[in-house]
Amino acid sequence: MKIQIINGPNLNLLGVREPGIYGNESFEAYFEKLKERNPDAKLFYFQSNVEGEIINQIQEAGFADTGIVLNAGGYTHTSVAIRDAIKAVRDFGVHVVEVHISNVHAREEFRHTSLISTVCLGSIAGFGLYSYDLAIQALKAAQ
Amino acid sequence: MKIQIINGPNLNLLGVREPGIYGNESFEAYFEKLKERNPDAKLFYFQSNVEGEIINQIQEAGFADTGIVLNAGGYTHTSVAIRDAIKAVRDFGVHVVEVHISNVHAREEFRHTSLISTVCLGSIAGFGLYSYDLAIQALKAAQ
Amino acid sequence: MKIQIINGPNLNLLGVREPGIYGNESFEAYFEKLKERNPDAKLFYFQSNVEGEIINQIQEAGFADTGIVLNAGGYTHTSVAIRDAIKAVRDFGVHVVEVHISNVHAREEFRHTSLISTVCLGSIAGFGLYSYDLAIQALKAAQ
Amino acid sequence: MKIQIINGPNLNLLGVREPGIYGNESFEAYFEKLKERNPDAKLFYFQSNVEGEIINQIQEAGFADTGIVLNAGGYTHTSVAIRDAIKAVRDFGVHVVEVHISNVHAREEFRHTSLISTVCLGSIAGFGLYSYDLAIQALKAAQ
Amino acid sequence: MKIQIINGPNLNLLGVREPGIYGNESFEAYFEKLKERNPDAKLFYFQSNVEGEIINQIQEAGFADTGIVLNAGGYTHTSVAIRDAIKAVRDFGVHVVEVHISNVHAREEFRHTSLISTVCLGSIAGFGLYSYDLAIQALKAAQ
Amino acid sequence: MKIQIINGPNLNLLGVREPGIYGNESFEAYFEKLKERNPDAKLFYFQSNVEGEIINQIQEAGFADTGIVLNAGGYTHTSVAIRDAIKAVRDFGVHVVEVHISNVHAREEFRHTSLISTVCLGSIAGFGLYSYDLAIQALKAAQ
Amino acid sequence: MKIQIINGPNLNLLGVREPGIYGNESFEAYFEKLKERNPDAKLFYFQSNVEGEIINQIQEAGFADTGIVLNAGGYTHTSVAIRDAIKAVRDFGVHVVEVHISNVHAREEFRHTSLISTVCLGSIAGFGLYSYDLAIQALKAAQ
Amino acid sequence: MKIQIINGPNLNLLGVREPGIYGNESFEAYFEKLKERNPDAKLFYFQSNVEGEIINQIQEAGFADTGIVLNAGGYTHTSVAIRDAIKAVRDFGVHVVEVHISNVHAREEFRHTSLISTVCLGSIAGFGLYSYDLAIQALKAAQ
Amino acid sequence: MKIQIINGPNLNLLGVREPGIYGNESFEAYFEKLKERNPDAKLFYFQSNVEGEIINQIQEAGFADTGIVLNAGGYTHTSVAIRDAIKAVRDFGVHVVEVHISNVHAREEFRHTSLISTVCLGSIAGFGLYSYDLAIQALKAAQ
Amino acid sequence: MKIQIINGPNLNLLGVREPGIYGNESFEAYFEKLKERNPDAKLFYFQSNVEGEIINQIQEAGFADTGIVLNAGGYTHTSVAIRDAIKAVRDFGVHVVEVHISNVHAREEFRHTSLISTVCLGSIAGFGLYSYDLAIQALKAAQ
Amino acid sequence: MKIQIINGPNLNLLGVREPGIYGNESFEAYFEKLKERNPDAKLFYFQSNVEGEIINQIQEAGFADTGIVLNAGGYTHTSVAIRDAIKAVRDFGVHVVEVHISNVHAREEFRHTSLISTVCLGSIAGFGLYSYDLAIQALKAAQ
Amino acid sequence: MKIQIINGPNLNLLGVREPGIYGNESFEAYFEKLKERNPDAKLFYFQSNVEGEIINQIQEAGFADTGIVLNAGGYTHTSVAIRDAIKAVRDFGVHVVEVHISNVHAREEFRHTSLISTVCLGSIAGFGLYSYDLAIQALKAAQ
Repeated sequence: MKIQIINGPNLNLLGVREPGIYGNESFEAYFEKLKERNPDAKLFYFQSNVEGEIINQIQEAGFADTGIVLNAGGYTHTSVAIRDAIKAVRDFGVHVVEVHISNVHAREEFRHTSLISTVCLGSIAGFGLYSYDLAIQALKAAQ
Repeated sequence: MKIQIINGPNLNLLGVREPGIYGNESFEAYFEKLKERNPDAKLFYFQSNVEGEIINQIQEAGFADTGIVLNAGGYTHTSVAIRDAIKAVRDFGVHVVEVHISNVHAREEFRHTSLISTVCLGSIAGFGLYSYDLAIQALKAAQ
Repeated sequence: MKIQIINGPNLNLLGVREPGIYGNESFEAYFEKLKERNPDAKLFYFQSNVEGEIINQIQEAGFADTGIVLNAGGYTHTSVAIRDAIKAVRDFGVHVVEVHISNVHAREEFRHTSLISTVCLGSIAGFGLYSYDLAIQALKAAQ
Repeated sequence: MKIQIINGPNLNLLGVREPGIYGNESFEAYFEKLKERNPDAKLFYFQSNVEGEIINQIQEAGFADTGIVLNAGGYTHTSVAIRDAIKAVRDFGVHVVEVHISNVHAREEFRHTSLISTVCLGSIAGFGLYSYDLAIQALKAAQ
Repeated sequence: MKIQIINGPNLNLLGVREPGIYGNESFEAYFEKLKERNPDAKLFYFQSNVEGEIINQIQEAGFADTGIVLNAGGYTHTSVAIRDAIKAVRDFGVHVVEVHISNVHAREEFRHTSLISTVCLGSIAGFGLYSYDLAIQALKAAQ
Repeated sequence: MKIQIINGPNLNLLGVREPGIYGNESFEAYFEKLKERNPDAKLFYFQSNVEGEIINQIQEAGFADTGIVLNAGGYTHTSVAIRDAIKAVRDFGVHVVEVHISNVHAREEFRHTSLISTVCLGSIAGFGLYSYDLAIQALKAAQ
Repeated sequence: MKIQIINGPNLNLLGVREPGIYGNESFEAYFEKLKERNPDAKLFYFQSNVEGEIINQIQEAGFADTGIVLNAGGYTHTSVAIRDAIKAVRDFGVHVVEVHISNVHAREEFRHTSLISTVCLGSIAGFGLYSYDLAIQALKAAQ
Repeated sequence: MKIQIINGPNLNLLGVREPGIYGNESFEAYFEKLKERNPDAKLFYFQSNVEGEIINQIQEAGFADTGIVLNAGGYTHTSVAIRDAIKAVRDFGVHVVEVHISNVHAREEFRHTSLISTVCLGSIAGFGLYSYDLAIQALKAAQ
Repeated sequence: MKIQIINGPNLNLLGVREPGIYGNESFEAYFEKLKERNPDAKLFYFQSNVEGEIINQIQEAGFADTGIVLNAGGYTHTSVAIRDAIKAVRDFGVHVVEVHISNVHAREEFRHTSLISTVCLGSIAGFGLYSYDLAIQALKAAQ
Repeated sequence: MKIQIINGPNLNLLGVREPGIYGNESFEAYFEKLKERNPDAKLFYFQSNVEGEIINQIQEAGFADTGIVLNAGGYTHTSVAIRDAIKAVRDFGVHVVEVHISNVHAREEFRHTSLISTVCLGSIAGFGLYSYDLAIQALKAAQ
Repeated sequence: MKIQIINGPNLNLLGVREPGIYGNESFEAYFEKLKERNPDAKLFYFQSNVEGEIINQIQEAGFADTGIVLNAGGYTHTSVAIRDAIKAVRDFGVHVVEVHISNVHAREEFRHTSLISTVCLGSIAGFGLYSYDLAIQALKAAQ
Repeated sequence: MKIQIINGPNLNLLGVREPGIYGNESFEAYFEKLKERNPDAKLFYFQSNVEGEIINQIQEAGFADTGIVLNAGGYTHTSVAIRDAIKAVRDFGVHVVEVHISNVHAREEFRHTSLISTVCLGSIAGFGLYSYDLAIQALKAAQ
């Protein structure tokens, strides 16, 4: 089983930016742990600040039958285009799980709306980096 | 470790009501599987259609140091009082995880607002009954 | 044919409260007349101020194949949970008719929204207690 | 007792348009049945697609002491002028009952607001053509 | 003179929950002081987390000519049904005074709307438990 | 100088409808007085309940260089089409004055918006039938 | 008969400010003409940029049985306090007529709401300084 | 192939009204050119300022299997009733294409909402009278 | 202990204006009673219709360590500047209590928002002039 | 004459994604047909998922005097930046025509707002790929 | 060159009120530094808590050809009348620069709207008292 | 001291696009002047139309301790992602100043909201290219 983790804008800053909210571990370090804990799956990691590159990656992974764990960061709330990409791979039969490190509902107003939730299989938010663990388990269970 | 699952209104109908959305297994049956899969925790189950009884149960479990998995059903979107109860036990040091069987964002408009999310540790939605498994894992990891 | 009339909060005060709007006859007295006028049906009556008890009664009556005449009073405008209960029995094949004694649209702003109307067979409002007569006829005709 | 039924725009298409919602009986045919079932009243029927002609008819019937059953169709949601006409005859002492064939609350958003409800005696919606039967009974009972 | 104090959901937690906002005295302890300071009145106390039980109590006390001091807690902002109960006893000639321990306007947005204020005699907020003293004096003065 | 008075829906009922608001004089009677008091102008009168006929009349009078006094009644708040007609004659160089018998701002919410005001020369409201006298004077002064 | 004209903020600039909208005559000059054209009434004039001074003047004139012509300028859209002052003198039996030189509805969005209109006898807008002539006539006719 | 062009309110003024926006050719003149350029189709033309007459014409043409090019003018933004008429003929299998001479989105706010677009085959706006040419081509291509 | 009572616009009219809502006693007369009933405190009284003078007085009293009872009248709902002044003296350590004679929530819509409540110690509304007695007691208790 | 077709995000998926809505022909295939049918024009094609690259292309084509047919996909509803680019080339004297394959008004709510329409020459939607044919014709006619 | 600095309500408290936000230097002290740093200009200072006095000062300075630096404090968000005064002097050819000490967008919701920005030359916010230095430089550069 | 100027989408068109609003000098030319006028600082310039590249640059400059002057153009109003990038460098201790050439509040409605202002040190708008001079001075003063 293949799983593609996609992180959106500014998530390359994990461990640097607002440690009070996001913790102080870099995602690369955590990614190693994720791979160890999931020997039965092939994990890939991709990060970009460019909306279009995220779309490209969703398409690429999705049409290669790879399940997706997506943290779209700031694009979660504004990107109709990412939403369309998710819907395209979902219609193709691939699952996408929405993930957030922090509890997005406990933050600013404009983070309360997610354009992405309605087209994902499900969403998980607020458990720190452990949210990615839960998302991977959810993808496995959904097969 | 003790974990209290609380199901809100109409969730006693699981297996009967809208099987297209909620599946056709009763929660009681699923609860047995949950207990088997989590031998390291003590699981309790409570369901009520009455808003105030859910508040009573949150208070009771919370002040007895029992982690809570809450599916507040239709009260998720309207109950300031349940929110206050969650906040009270959270301030006491107990975690509450919000759970939904279906993807609430993919349904009617009035199900998009959650008064409860902002005071919970995190929330999980859309993975069918398996959402409860993920919530239990999240509670364990949060300790 | 069995018909369950369910009255919500404060409707036990009929004949006492705001007679200018609701008339000065108690519902119990009127219920006797309803039974006389409908010898071909078996009528039951239930009233409660508690939201969850109304849900219980909708479930109970509905899954016993009993048509329902519901005046949800103040809960009409706020209860997602009652709405879910109605939808559950409707999907089971039972009719629910919404009833209001007064013309709710002619009163305060917050009484203009009904969360319940969209899942009922139909709704009747503004004819005083005679609204219940019309609702019973509608239930009979819908069989 | 005299009763004027007034149907608004597109209701001349009953039996043709969207039979899934409106049934496949023309109103003229149904009107004959209504007359048979109500031998104690004198029934009149009027239909127009023109807003102003409906106003003319409300005035004419109302000031001739004729009770009115009104299905204003698409004008229900937009016409302040029809509302004013209803209020004029109501102040003159004549009852107007609002009728809808389908459950308007279960359809598009812009059909949820009724400018007419607040000035009518009461309203009945969702019981197919049988809604007219109920409206006639309500008018009789209100005398 | 008889006065019924009614406390809504989570107010049984006074002295435990968020002491920074609500103080650390339980209401039962404070109630004893209230009785001492008001020897000229007969004080009763009732608390419930259940919306319908609060309605029951308002009706019971009100129709027994007992003035009411009501802190409806989280139901203040959402309950049309409690509002209807207050209006019923007010029309019967009994005063209801709205009370809040904290300054509700200085807290979250959704606590700014009160469905209850418009049907009460008046409202008092922000003086800690002393708000109840003021409410009792207001009730006495209003006689 | 020629002046066309146009009255919209239900204004044929003046003297009959809601005399508390509109007075009990018919407009036809008042029109005679207006003609007497304005011997230096040629006055015409037109009333219709039909939106399109009002548009026709605005075009006809306007393109014949006749100043217009318009009371659009209920159409004031909903008709984009009447607004377009007024704009057309205004661009042709003819004045249109908006008139209301009652103070529209002191009535229901939906009467507070006027689609017509922004394209008229000016507007006069609240002085009973005397509003028409003022409008005629305003038209004369504007020449 | 006594009539007090009250002009609000920036109206001392008439003849200077935006002559395209307001004309290039100062109000003092126009006031002389108004007195000449109304020999049967005693006219007074007051202007202030200070909200509270306008309130003082409304109270003073009103309780001295003087009819009021009020152009509240920018305060029209924001002042609850001026509204209360108008209501006080109106309840005392004195008429207040709202006046605007330009057509306020044809300008910026925030000029469309008038807090004052609902408590005035009527309002006149858009006829330049001649609006004051019309307002005086309206006051005379209303006696 | 038969095609019915329907023009709504004020479009009889084409060539007269706001030539800067609408051009200075009358529609009758342009209609001759349309016929010449489309010898393979039978074109009909109808214009009315009355909402109900437009509905009548839509029904008549539609049920006679005639494709429709509709410019509903000011009714585009307010008429639920015209929308219902379009939907009726569409369900019958006939295409309706929405046309606007100017770019409606570049004008006033209230012209941005179209109640009609969602039930038409498609819409074309902003190309002057040439929009009608495009609409006719679209109708031909859709067969 | 020193207490400054500040009354805002139109409250100089107490006893004159709308006695049905505000009673028919002037505040000056009532102030004498307040002084008699509070011999342990030094009471001062100030009234103004001018927003800026109220700000001046709040600053003056506040920075002289005088507790404040404020009825800001119509400015309650619109004045950010008064709000800033209250916040300044509160940060200095002085209490301000908001007072209203009538139940502001039971009146017009625009009186439901208070810009002042969030920065006051607490607020009291609806008990007539007795509201001032309660406010004084609250100030004493808060010391 | 040169014409640049620009397709936005996810339109590279044409023929794959939601064929029920978008048809199953790839745009590249269709582009060949477009070239054949328009021998009198030079057609260019560009697609990108990156918002900024679309802006670059609009600038490049526009300032080279090439007319533009733009389907901005998901960016239609959110991109102020693309809007600015269109405006820049329009001010330079080049036409941009907005195109949509499906009827955007018949889909999700958030697709109803177009930030782009107001700065384009015109817009065409709902005719499948044939919309591009119509757009090319419109560009030719506009020269 | 003459420059008038105008400070609105509560800005006389600079150095006293909320030093965490506004710093602890009084404006009078800072004004001396401003004069030293700008020997090539004549600086004047005015402060008032009264809205109308600020309007008076804007008019006076403006019509004496004096550039204006305005910090309208709490009136920034509510005063249409100050806006009109600024517009009047701007049309006369005088520049007004809006200044705020703190970053108003980073504070409460109701401080996000500025009625004044749109009629000023420009605005500067968030640099503490140094904002006034920047404003003076901007005025000089604009000449 | 190092200062990075970042210009967003379409600002490469300065001198070409809408010279009435933006002036006719290219930014590159102006940048040379800025360097001359600020010999005590090291200035860098970057422009991009790609949202993601602006984010990259903010991160790069910010984490290299370079102060930032940002004109985000059209992304100002929509980009949550840029906002997150600013917040990240701000938390790292670097200042970002928001700059606009024109007075954004005096333009279209959708330019009134800035997602960026609340996370910047301060903002400057409306002084043409001179706004950049002021921003550089503000950055120097803030050190």
